[in-house]
Amino acid sequence: MDIKQRITEANEEVVRRLTSGLPVLVDIAPAGEVIPGMEGKMITHSGPPIEWSRMCGAQQGSVIGSVIYEGWAETPEDARALLDGGEIHLEPNHSHSTVGPMAGTISPSAPVWVVENRTFGNRAFCRQVEPRQQFGDYSPDALDGLRRWRDLFAPTLREALLHLGGVELDPIIIQALQMGDELHNRHSASSSLFANQMAIGIAKAGVPLDRALPTLGHLAGHNLLFLGLAMAAGKAITDPARGVESSSVVIAMCRNGTEFGIQVSGLGDEWFVAPAPVVEGLYLPGFTSSDAGLDMGDSAITETVGWGGFALGGAPGILALVGGTPEDALGYTREMRGITTAKHPTHRMPALGFEGTSVGIDIRKVVQTDVSPIIDTAIAHREAGHPIIGAGMVRAPMECFKGALRAFGRRYTP
Amino acid sequence: MDIKQRITEANEEVVRRLTSGLPVLVDIAPAGEVIPGMEGKMITHSGPPIEWSRMCGAQQGSVIGSVIYEGWAETPEDARALLDGGEIHLEPNHSHSTVGPMAGTISPSAPVWVVENRTFGNRAFCRQVEPRQQFGDYSPDALDGLRRWRDLFAPTLREALLHLGGVELDPIIIQALQMGDELHNRHSASSSLFANQMAIGIAKAGVPLDRALPTLGHLAGHNLLFLGLAMAAGKAITDPARGVESSSVVIAMCRNGTEFGIQVSGLGDEWFVAPAPVVEGLYLPGFTSSDAGLDMGDSAITETVGWGGFALGGAPGILALVGGTPEDALGYTREMRGITTAKHPTHRMPALGFEGTSVGIDIRKVVQTDVSPIIDTAIAHREAGHPIIGAGMVRAPMECFKGALRAFGRRYTP
Repeated sequence: MDIKQRITEANEEVVRRLTSGLPVLVDIAPAGEVIPGMEGKMITHSGPPIEWSRMCGAQQGSVIGSVIYEGWAETPEDARALLDGGEIHLEPNHSHSTVGPMAGTISPSAPVWVVENRTFGNRAFCRQVEPRQQFGDYSPDALDGLRRWRDLFAPTLREALLHLGGVELDPIIIQALQMGDELHNRHSASSSLFANQMAIGIAKAGVPLDRALPTLGHLAGHNLLFLGLAMAAGKAITDPARGVESSSVVIAMCRNGTEFGIQVSGLGDEWFVAPAPVVEGLYLPGFTSSDAGLDMGDSAITETVGWGGFALGGAPGILALVGGTPEDALGYTREMRGITTAKHPTHRMPALGFEGTSVGIDIRKVVQTDVSPIIDTAIAHREAGHPIIGAGMVRAPMECFKGALRAFGRRYTP
Repeated sequence: MDIKQRITEANEEVVRRLTSGLPVLVDIAPAGEVIPGMEGKMITHSGPPIEWSRMCGAQQGSVIGSVIYEGWAETPEDARALLDGGEIHLEPNHSHSTVGPMAGTISPSAPVWVVENRTFGNRAFCRQVEPRQQFGDYSPDALDGLRRWRDLFAPTLREALLHLGGVELDPIIIQALQMGDELHNRHSASSSLFANQMAIGIAKAGVPLDRALPTLGHLAGHNLLFLGLAMAAGKAITDPARGVESSSVVIAMCRNGTEFGIQVSGLGDEWFVAPAPVVEGLYLPGFTSSDAGLDMGDSAITETVGWGGFALGGAPGILALVGGTPEDALGYTREMRGITTAKHPTHRMPALGFEGTSVGIDIRKVVQTDVSPIIDTAIAHREAGHPIIGAGMVRAPMECFKGALRAFGRRYTP
C-alpha cells in the first residue's frame, strides 16, 4: 500500500471516530476531584503551552482572578507576586482532557462539566461560560459570579443531573444545528433545550425553592450556557481520534491570545504554533479594535468537529454578533467542504438542504487550497481586568498547517 | 383627498395596529368560562361559516369527537344523530374572537389559551394543538388525550401561569423567528423557550411532583406546543385592525376543509370564500394524496400576521416536513413582499439579513400581481376518524381576493 492510500485510510478511521462519538453529560464536579493531574496550586489555561510571562493581558488577568478565587492571594498585586515567583503551576487544558473558553482558566475548586464519550469510554471537561473572569476581569463582581456558580448553580445542577442519570448531548446538538445554533457563539437553541431537561431533573430531585428558582432563572436566561457543554463534547469526541498513525487530520485547534496552535492525529502531541491572529469583528459600545487582544480560547474545538464557523451558514442569527451577511455565512460553510474529509451523517444544516457539517480538517487540503479554517469567536481586551468587548471572525494561521505538513512529510516520507 | 390616498392611509393605520400588538398569555381556562357567546350545546369550528351537512369528513369527525368528549353522546352514531337533528349549535371560531388548528373544534369544557393584546385591551382564544382529535380522530385514545389536557396539563399550567402573572409572548416570538421557527408548523424554538418560562411558574406555584413531572415532560416533548399560543396571539393582534374604513388589508384567512375564506378590514365581517384548495405535500407512511382532505384550519391567522409561509425563508428546518429546497423557501418569503404593505419592525429573519416579516396583505396587490399568499400547513384525511396524515404547501385561492376586490370596488367607488 502506498503512502497516499495509507493516509486516506487513516483519515477515514479518524473521521469514523469523530462522527461516531456519543457525548453524555455525566457530572458537574470540582476540577480537582475529576480532572486527571489537577493537583496543588495549579491553574490550567486555554491554548498551546505558555509560561506566565508570555501570556497576554486578558489571560494574565483571568489567571489572577483564579488565584484570588482560590484564596491563594487576597489582592491582584499578591497574585502577581506569586505568579512572577513561579509558585502557581500553569498547564494547558488540552494536556488534561480539558478545554476552556477564552482565557480558559480552571482551578481546583472550580466546578466543571464532565462529559463522557459513550462510544469510546473517555471523559472530557470544560468550565462554565461567563462574560467576565474568563475574559480577564478579576474584579470582586467577576469573582462573585464564579462563587455563585460554585456554591449555588453547579451543586444544584449536579443534584438534578444525578437524578436524571446523565443527559445525552447528541440529540440536543442535532436539534440545535437545525434551530440556527452553530454551537460556538450561538447557543440559543441548545441552551433552551438543555434547560428543559434540567428543569425536569430539578423537579425530580426535589430541590428546595430557594435554590430551584434562581437556578431555573439562570438556565432560562443564559443563552450561551451550552457552550461549555459543546466544548466538553467536542473534546470528548476528538480525544479518541488522536494518535492514528498516518492521519493528516487536525484533532485540536486552540489559542492562548499569544499563539495559535494545532495538533494532528498522526503527529502525536506535538503543537504547531504561529502568532495568534487579529479578530475582525464588532465591538461593544465604548470599545474599538485598538482595545482588542488577539485570538484566544479552546473554543475552536467546536470548529475542529465541524461546528462554529464551519456551520455558520446554518446560523445566520449570529451575524448580529459577529457581522457579515447571510451570503457570507453560507460561503464560509461551503468553503470548508474543500479542506475537510467527510460530511457528518447526523449533524445537518437545513439552510444547506440538510447537508451534514464538514468534519476532519486535512492539513494537506488546507495548504494545497490555501484556505484556512474559519472561526467565529469572542474578543477580549488586550489588557488584564476587562470583561468581553466584542465578537467576530478569524482564520486559523496558515503557518500552523504549513509547519504541521512539513513535520508530516518528514515523518511519513517513504 | 382622493380614494387612493384614503386607502393608503387606512392601510397604514391597519399595519400600525398589526405591528404594535403586544400579546400576553394571561390564562388557560375552559372555553365556556371565557369565550364570549359560548353557551349551551355549542361547538365552534375553524374556517368561514358552514353547516354540519357541508362539513368535510375530518371536520365532521372532530365535531363528533367533541360531542362525545362533552358527554352529549356516548357513541359516534348517537353523536351523528344529534348533529343531523340540529341539536348542536355550530359557529365559526372567528365569530368569537377565537381560532383553532385544523378542524378547530372547541366545546365548552375544553381549556383554551387566553391571550390579551396589551396595546388594545382585547382578548383572543385558541385551543391546544394535538395530532388526533383536531384532525378528525374521535377514537377513545384521541379523546383521552383531550381529557389529559383538561384534567392534568391545563390546570397545572394555569396554576403556574397565575403565579407568573402572565407570560409576554412577543419576546418569545421575536427570538423564535431568529431560531428557525416560522410559527405555523415549526415551533421547536418557541415551544422550548415557553417551556422554560412555565418551568419557573411550576416551581413558583409549588405544584406537587405527581403533576409537575408529567407536565414538565409534556412541555419538553411537545415541539408544536406554541402553535396554539401563536394562533391566539395572531388573532389578538388582528382583531383590533378590523373595521378600518377604506382599508384593503386582509385581517383573517381561514379554511374549514370545504371552503377557504378571507375577511378584509374595510369590508366589515363579510366572508369572501372559494372552494378549499388541495395541499401539495409530504405524507406519513401509509398515506398518499388520494387520502387527503382539502385545506383546513384557522392556523392561516399566522400568515395573516406575517409568519408561516411568509417567514419560510428563515425556517428551512420545516422543509423536512413540507418538502422543497432552502431556495424555494427564500423565494416564497421574498415573493410575499410584493403583496403586502410593510415590514414588521421587530419580527426579523436573520437568513434575509434581519429583514422584517411582510405584513398587511393587500387584496389589490394580490389581484394585480396574480400572486396569492403562500401557506404551510398540515394535512388531514378526507374521511372522519383519522389523525394527521401529512403536511405541505398551499396557495390561498385567488377567487377570494377577486371577490373581495369586487366588493371593495362597489363599496368605495366614489
